[in-house]
Amino acid sequence: MPPSPILRILLSNDDGYFAPGIEALAAALGDLGEITVVAPERDRSGASNSLTLDRPLHLRRSANGYFYVNGTPTDCVHLAVTGMLEQQPDMVVSGINLGANMGDDTIYSGTVAAAMEGYLLGVPAVAVSLTSKEGKHFATAARIARATVERFRRSPFDGPVLLNINVPDLPWEEIRGVKVTRLGRRHKAEPVVKQVSPRHETVYWVGAAGAAADAGEGTDFHAVANGYVSVTPLQIDLTHAAQVGAVTEWLAR
Amino acid sequence: MPPSPILRILLSNDDGYFAPGIEALAAALGDLGEITVVAPERDRSGASNSLTLDRPLHLRRSANGYFYVNGTPTDCVHLAVTGMLEQQPDMVVSGINLGANMGDDTIYSGTVAAAMEGYLLGVPAVAVSLTSKEGKHFATAARIARATVERFRRSPFDGPVLLNINVPDLPWEEIRGVKVTRLGRRHKAEPVVKQVSPRHETVYWVGAAGAAADAGEGTDFHAVANGYVSVTPLQIDLTHAAQVGAVTEWLAR
Amino acid sequence: MPPSPILRILLSNDDGYFAPGIEALAAALGDLGEITVVAPERDRSGASNSLTLDRPLHLRRSANGYFYVNGTPTDCVHLAVTGMLEQQPDMVVSGINLGANMGDDTIYSGTVAAAMEGYLLGVPAVAVSLTSKEGKHFATAARIARATVERFRRSPFDGPVLLNINVPDLPWEEIRGVKVTRLGRRHKAEPVVKQVSPRHETVYWVGAAGAAADAGEGTDFHAVANGYVSVTPLQIDLTHAAQVGAVTEWLAR
Amino acid sequence: MPPSPILRILLSNDDGYFAPGIEALAAALGDLGEITVVAPERDRSGASNSLTLDRPLHLRRSANGYFYVNGTPTDCVHLAVTGMLEQQPDMVVSGINLGANMGDDTIYSGTVAAAMEGYLLGVPAVAVSLTSKEGKHFATAARIARATVERFRRSPFDGPVLLNINVPDLPWEEIRGVKVTRLGRRHKAEPVVKQVSPRHETVYWVGAAGAAADAGEGTDFHAVANGYVSVTPLQIDLTHAAQVGAVTEWLAR
Repeated sequence: MPPSPILRILLSNDDGYFAPGIEALAAALGDLGEITVVAPERDRSGASNSLTLDRPLHLRRSANGYFYVNGTPTDCVHLAVTGMLEQQPDMVVSGINLGANMGDDTIYSGTVAAAMEGYLLGVPAVAVSLTSKEGKHFATAARIARATVERFRRSPFDGPVLLNINVPDLPWEEIRGVKVTRLGRRHKAEPVVKQVSPRHETVYWVGAAGAAADAGEGTDFHAVANGYVSVTPLQIDLTHAAQVGAVTEWLAR
Repeated sequence: MPPSPILRILLSNDDGYFAPGIEALAAALGDLGEITVVAPERDRSGASNSLTLDRPLHLRRSANGYFYVNGTPTDCVHLAVTGMLEQQPDMVVSGINLGANMGDDTIYSGTVAAAMEGYLLGVPAVAVSLTSKEGKHFATAARIARATVERFRRSPFDGPVLLNINVPDLPWEEIRGVKVTRLGRRHKAEPVVKQVSPRHETVYWVGAAGAAADAGEGTDFHAVANGYVSVTPLQIDLTHAAQVGAVTEWLAR
Repeated sequence: MPPSPILRILLSNDDGYFAPGIEALAAALGDLGEITVVAPERDRSGASNSLTLDRPLHLRRSANGYFYVNGTPTDCVHLAVTGMLEQQPDMVVSGINLGANMGDDTIYSGTVAAAMEGYLLGVPAVAVSLTSKEGKHFATAARIARATVERFRRSPFDGPVLLNINVPDLPWEEIRGVKVTRLGRRHKAEPVVKQVSPRHETVYWVGAAGAAADAGEGTDFHAVANGYVSVTPLQIDLTHAAQVGAVTEWLAR
Repeated sequence: MPPSPILRILLSNDDGYFAPGIEALAAALGDLGEITVVAPERDRSGASNSLTLDRPLHLRRSANGYFYVNGTPTDCVHLAVTGMLEQQPDMVVSGINLGANMGDDTIYSGTVAAAMEGYLLGVPAVAVSLTSKEGKHFATAARIARATVERFRRSPFDGPVLLNINVPDLPWEEIRGVKVTRLGRRHKAEPVVKQVSPRHETVYWVGAAGAAADAGEGTDFHAVANGYVSVTPLQIDLTHAAQVGAVTEWLAR
């Protein structure tokens, strides 16, 4: 697919349309093409690829021109691409998320899910996350996002692609480079945390993610810990190809 | 891991704790071990791996002894395994879903997500779906689920395992066998469907899934279409390993 | 309006269609007429007269024949009366709520709201609450509900009516009688209760209701505290008629 | 209560913290005292006095300094007054709602509910609505709100007060004056509107409100229809005092 004369870029996220990260993204990409923002009306962190099937969605427009949807990140991209935009966008960029999306966490991530929905619908897609909750250096992540989009415009990737980019929360000068990585693995999550409500009911918070279990050389965890931007190409086929034989054998027992 | 003297089985689903599919499952497995049902309080189809992070969950018990949670399928299994059950269960079984979970749809599936959460937490896990919306032959799927659990008890699988089982909605006698498969692929989803609300707002329903694109020999689509039970071993690493080189090269351009 | 040959009774509540209180109610009224249950799919305590305007509702049927709606108590009665039932019901009965709905709390009550929606739509309506959270004597409240419906059948009230009935959680023999009351008043609510989530965010629970401020002779609080069933006729005109003069004078200053 | 040296004003609404109406209100009142905005994170029109009891609320701050809560209008005022603000505010002002809140509709209104929660907590409170969905003349309603607050500052109302103000959507010059009114009455609502979802499920939208039934001289409907600002003093005691005798007689039959 040759680049359109004007690059059409769809932006989304999971933190909500009002989040500083998506504003930073829109500002950074603004002059590279035609930007449309379609994002959730409220924070939907942890939404994963959740798709809303039991009610219709509404699409409203904020004073700043952003569209917002009463749905999930996946809903936003799905609605934009399959019904709202007149033409298929040239790229989907999701983020900039406040907080990392690495290792097993990608499974739960709404930021990655928004990009993945673009990819499933045939659009090259990028998820961008800033790897701390402080959010000090959105500018660094925005610059990486911009460089990535420029590269697509200049030299389209050959074939479908879904990139999961995690950017250390550091000033630009302290970034040591870019590494193409695989997803690391975490240890099991911490137990749920119990509290008692004022109405004497026990309630349970999902606990913290586990510590990194596989954070070795080559993983996203390792790259970020060492000051590198991590770029992981993702795919969506969950088949455990290596286990097909063993399962076949087991079923024959 | 040797089987416990008593097999502890955690059941969940995404259709809600009151759904006929989970009752059929509980009935079929009831004498194989100690069954605990922890399922969403309402239909959460399409929930994917969504995890609730912005509020705590409550856990209540229905008259029939099932527990229900005001959260997602993932929340249910997470809460049960990391906080409610005194011991790690020996298996997680999710379903029986009313409707198929094959191909790309596994990405959106709450049924698969519930099983996947068990797998992530170190528990062998099985998702079971009946591949039609009529739900005529839950008994067939229940029998398959039972046979699978019996096999685990008799002959534990060596290592972590996550099986996605889709059962044709046929009488038991018409099932032609079991095939170990890979996930097929769908074409792009149908466009969103617009309606106008009585308050004159345009709203958008997520449209139907696309037709099967890769439904060839070896896929789950193919097995089910031919009257076989499909068993797909899944994994959760989304890394597109085959693309690491190409992305590295592209980033160097 | 003369009673229909068959009394058509619509039941709803705010605790959800599966709650013991609505089952007790349906059982107690079952032979007095044609019962239809339309209730929320999940606990909606505190829903007040909330009406769902931004999405459509679905109406599903449980295995026991009850209908449930993914909406509020008000939605349930609204949908049943204006779209689902072939004929206007002869009565709406809401409850039996687990917990009192007295004094200022009626403003927040979903139980009262369900009955109020019937009343607004022209149907005589009754809200029934059991005044403790233990729920030991649903049978007592069910018997009161039955007696009230029988009275309507025997001797229809002249004109529109909305009754808010609170029943002490006592064995039938210990009930001292029935009092027609006015709503009491509470002191201000307790402050919100702060907790800190595992993700280090401060969250706030709505605190307990205040103690009774006006619980004197003639109030619902007083009747129940003394072992009487409280019956308060309600209306829905919030105009502060007695203050019209003072406000007119004030606006002229 | 004498006015504080600095008037502390709490603003809320039901349209969400980002709505043009609350911005117009904040701008109009900005120099009259210390303004704090605590409003729902998303549109909660129709929320009535709904109070969130089954989960805690979070309180976040937008870039423009407004606080937003993942709850209802009632939650917002409740949380602000009973836990967040260091001192009880001198006034609660809710609005400016996009659309009228007159007659029976006040029962469903989140705008009125936010003010009512202030009133219940002992704070003089005003709800302000612009009586069309076009929202052309927020400036007119903002000027009325400002004049009302100035009047409170200059000459506090003697005793608790809850004012429901509806402002015609007209240029200031075309407003014919202010009338103190009673709430009118509507005819029954229109039936629910059925639609069929793409997944072949029938869904039901709550229909339009009924036409005015009592819109005679003295009502809010009448005032607004004739170009006057309507000011209705409200109270929260739902007791139907005039019916106590008849119900007592009926129960004795």
